[in-house]
Amino acid sequence: MTLQTDTLPFHGRRGYMIVCDGSNGAGKTTLIERVRSHLVALGREVVVTREPGGTPIGEKIREILLCPDTPEMCDITELMLFGAARAQHLHEKILPALSAGKVVLCDRFDSATISFQQYARGLDAELVARINTLALDGFRPDLYLILDLDPVRGLQRVRARGQALDRLEAEKLAFLQRAREGYLTQAQEDPGRFKVLDAGRPADEVAAEAIALVERLLGQGDQHIGTVRQEAQ
Amino acid sequence: MTLQTDTLPFHGRRGYMIVCDGSNGAGKTTLIERVRSHLVALGREVVVTREPGGTPIGEKIREILLCPDTPEMCDITELMLFGAARAQHLHEKILPALSAGKVVLCDRFDSATISFQQYARGLDAELVARINTLALDGFRPDLYLILDLDPVRGLQRVRARGQALDRLEAEKLAFLQRAREGYLTQAQEDPGRFKVLDAGRPADEVAAEAIALVERLLGQGDQHIGTVRQEAQ
Repeated sequence: MTLQTDTLPFHGRRGYMIVCDGSNGAGKTTLIERVRSHLVALGREVVVTREPGGTPIGEKIREILLCPDTPEMCDITELMLFGAARAQHLHEKILPALSAGKVVLCDRFDSATISFQQYARGLDAELVARINTLALDGFRPDLYLILDLDPVRGLQRVRARGQALDRLEAEKLAFLQRAREGYLTQAQEDPGRFKVLDAGRPADEVAAEAIALVERLLGQGDQHIGTVRQEAQ
Repeated sequence: MTLQTDTLPFHGRRGYMIVCDGSNGAGKTTLIERVRSHLVALGREVVVTREPGGTPIGEKIREILLCPDTPEMCDITELMLFGAARAQHLHEKILPALSAGKVVLCDRFDSATISFQQYARGLDAELVARINTLALDGFRPDLYLILDLDPVRGLQRVRARGQALDRLEAEKLAFLQRAREGYLTQAQEDPGRFKVLDAGRPADEVAAEAIALVERLLGQGDQHIGTVRQEAQ
């Protein structure tokens, strides 16, 4: 397994952005907490955040996006709301944290828009790409940890913890199957940045694999930063 | 004075969309009510609406946009929120009304984004155009009635009626001067569709001029529709 080196932190970006994404009910929240504790124990400063949301403005946009009472929302409106929240998140929270050398752990990101809006809902790929490009202006996270789980098992887990399904979760199973395909396709297309984790295993095993991937990213990145610093001296 | 004929209703668009826009405090609300009453008296079905807003989703977006407590909002976030609200407005409310042969009177539209975000706030013209294009997908209103007023007088009027200034209104006077230039420039570039009305005159005079313009648009359009129908028979 190799990790991309062209995306390791530079251009004043001394921290790392790691996205945790994948099927609903696959254990994103648990995994993020495990990775966070591990990094904090190593002395890293960690920012945990989520999409849509992550900022006061973004959380207000999230309320509109996930409200179950607005089935009339147009596709383009939905995409632009995700884009608006993402741009705010990037500029207000993510980039400042990365500049300060922190590790950002983000629950969902552009990968979710591509899987849910493009693959599952069938929105035009070029439109999705155009809005993501506008929102992110060339920025890319360093690592995507994709929790992969059969949607049938994912929905069972969501129901088991007694949470109500939100507007997107309430969509049909076929929709969730297409979203899963979206994640797997993104991982195939960018294997250096996307790592697929089998989320059907016990949480400890999943966390151990994720932590190994994160440590490798941070190790390579710190070495890279060290080299750049030595050259600059 | 001539009006564009290439934009008169066709492609299943039997109604008319008229935007009322311009400086703050220039009398948009009063003018819209005068035009509405006049058209209703003539037997037209009229839909009065506004931007940002006009739909339940759009009104929620409006709250985020005009909230005075979020000065941290990024330019791209602001543009995408306007775009999201506009796309929803177009598909949920404006296009159905036009298909049903109604006249839509809209308080502000893309012209306001171009004046306030691009000219006044200095956002990249291409970015503004790209988001407006995504939101409107080629749609253009039939007529823009631009109420032109010295911003000093406009702000005096807003304060005189005891309304609090919202986030955008509270911006400096220089900002409002640049917005005014934005409206005048749009009118120069598209004189067939944009009509500038001197809003420093008594409301009756302004309304009379606006109503004459609207009647000419509707007269030309109805004639055009009649011809198309005859040819189709």
